[in-house]
Amino acid sequence: MSESTGSEGRAVPPTVLVLDAPAPAPPPRLGALTGRVRIRHTDADGLAGELPGADVLLVWDFLSDAVRHAWPGEGPRPRWVHTASAGVDRLMCPELVASDTVVTNARGVFDQPIAEYVAALVLAMAKDLPRTLALQGERTWLHRESQRIAGTRACVVGSGPIGRAVVRTLKALGITTVLVGRRPRTGVHGPADLDRLLARADWVVCAAPLTEDTRGMFDERRFGVMQPSARFINVGRGPLVVEEDLVAALSKRWIAGAALDVFESEPLPPDSPLWTAPGLLVSPHMSGDTVGWRDELGAQFVKLYAQWEAGRSLSNVVDKKRGYVPGH
Amino acid sequence: MSESTGSEGRAVPPTVLVLDAPAPAPPPRLGALTGRVRIRHTDADGLAGELPGADVLLVWDFLSDAVRHAWPGEGPRPRWVHTASAGVDRLMCPELVASDTVVTNARGVFDQPIAEYVAALVLAMAKDLPRTLALQGERTWLHRESQRIAGTRACVVGSGPIGRAVVRTLKALGITTVLVGRRPRTGVHGPADLDRLLARADWVVCAAPLTEDTRGMFDERRFGVMQPSARFINVGRGPLVVEEDLVAALSKRWIAGAALDVFESEPLPPDSPLWTAPGLLVSPHMSGDTVGWRDELGAQFVKLYAQWEAGRSLSNVVDKKRGYVPGH
Repeated sequence: MSESTGSEGRAVPPTVLVLDAPAPAPPPRLGALTGRVRIRHTDADGLAGELPGADVLLVWDFLSDAVRHAWPGEGPRPRWVHTASAGVDRLMCPELVASDTVVTNARGVFDQPIAEYVAALVLAMAKDLPRTLALQGERTWLHRESQRIAGTRACVVGSGPIGRAVVRTLKALGITTVLVGRRPRTGVHGPADLDRLLARADWVVCAAPLTEDTRGMFDERRFGVMQPSARFINVGRGPLVVEEDLVAALSKRWIAGAALDVFESEPLPPDSPLWTAPGLLVSPHMSGDTVGWRDELGAQFVKLYAQWEAGRSLSNVVDKKRGYVPGH
Repeated sequence: MSESTGSEGRAVPPTVLVLDAPAPAPPPRLGALTGRVRIRHTDADGLAGELPGADVLLVWDFLSDAVRHAWPGEGPRPRWVHTASAGVDRLMCPELVASDTVVTNARGVFDQPIAEYVAALVLAMAKDLPRTLALQGERTWLHRESQRIAGTRACVVGSGPIGRAVVRTLKALGITTVLVGRRPRTGVHGPADLDRLLARADWVVCAAPLTEDTRGMFDERRFGVMQPSARFINVGRGPLVVEEDLVAALSKRWIAGAALDVFESEPLPPDSPLWTAPGLLVSPHMSGDTVGWRDELGAQFVKLYAQWEAGRSLSNVVDKKRGYVPGH
């Protein structure tokens, strides 16, 4: 899907409004746009006042819900919104979906980093590294057997570029993988196969977008069909998982372990039971964020801006109703 | 290299002496030899008394130095010694080297498990998992950037089957690898290239056998040529590394981190400074020991025994002077 929304023939350069993250810094690489745009910065509080005057909105603070709350509805508004994230769930509201404003995302930037992160989690759990580190803290030498990963089975849920990158990386390590998406197609199972595939998986990896169809999909029933030896990994979005059901499944040993990089509430509150759930590894939404990621996100916006400026089709256009960029 | 050392035409089955490990159990799978051998078990204390009457010695307690101390020299002795390990360093003594006794090892059993373990360590360090686990213990959410591993460079020292398996696995993850062995050949650099390759490596992986040529090869000078961002991993044998030089290199930040699975003294004593060296991950000599490893080692001995019994060439014959099974 693509849209032609150029700025040719203008006297005044278009206004790009940047919804800045509180920390640590504004987007890099935008210097490439000097003279071609007027860049204005805002935080969540100022967003509603600035949106009507902006041609383009760059959502740099992609963890913010501010756009959803400040979106002007029928009034003057940006014609293009780009978010520096793969997921658009925090952004979307019915008025934005209904409008003719184009939404693009950071498709591509996070695929390989997240695939490596998933491989790191799979190997760490197979080799029992968390316990090794705990024993080292106690100066205790305790030999254990660990697990081979070659020959095990992974079920990857989410057939976008991140899920597909996870599949490629796990396959390279000798893991047998299946991929589950919203609709069955070559190489991708549909939702009807999910429970059967979960029941056979050693590793269940969630890399799905958060939509009304996927919210809460990993719940008591789904953890119940998994093997007692299975490990569950979520690198998608927190609300894909019913967190209390996961804690219960781990406590009752329905599954052997889990790793969450995303949560219903981020940052995870200090009093969350997830911090100490048995066999659960908690990481602070960092799976895709490798050194240079902010530069890549900035450069990606510059590239998309050049398409928009020239009136060409934009890449990475989100299907606003579905909540992700449709693939093959 | 192979030897013909059969038992054809005997009235009494040959005696296989098993040097048992103190725990947890004698070798599995030897039931396949019932009626074909007389199996006797001993511990280190009884070894010297039993060796003269044994045709074959199975060194199941491969962490023991007992064989070296109990070897009978010129007297009656086993004609074949098999060790359930890849390294033979703990076994060898001048009298055994000089004798016509054949020595075989567990070549092949540990290759893929150790390669997976090295990948686990590389990914854990790149993704900063040890710190993530420590922060989880403090219920602290602290987002950090992590490192891509694709496109980084690894220098693998030791060109036997373990080193080559490590290379294959790291390559599958997109890491550029070089392999260093005792002599240069196609795809393998010789020792003359080592320092130059170490200076360019993000990951230095030691999977070399312990011989008089390799003892202490990772010392102050070699850590000094590595990059400040380099990480060092040892899955070979402890004495390949000068441990106090590694602690100093980590403390002075000559290198960014290290992981040791093998040590000069095993189990690592509780008062060792290695437990708390900055950026050092300590694991209890477990890299190759995946579920089922003892069965594989037992089955491997049964297979070699059938070769020996039939007077065929033995597989996995160690070049006793060099201290490993010569490869291509």
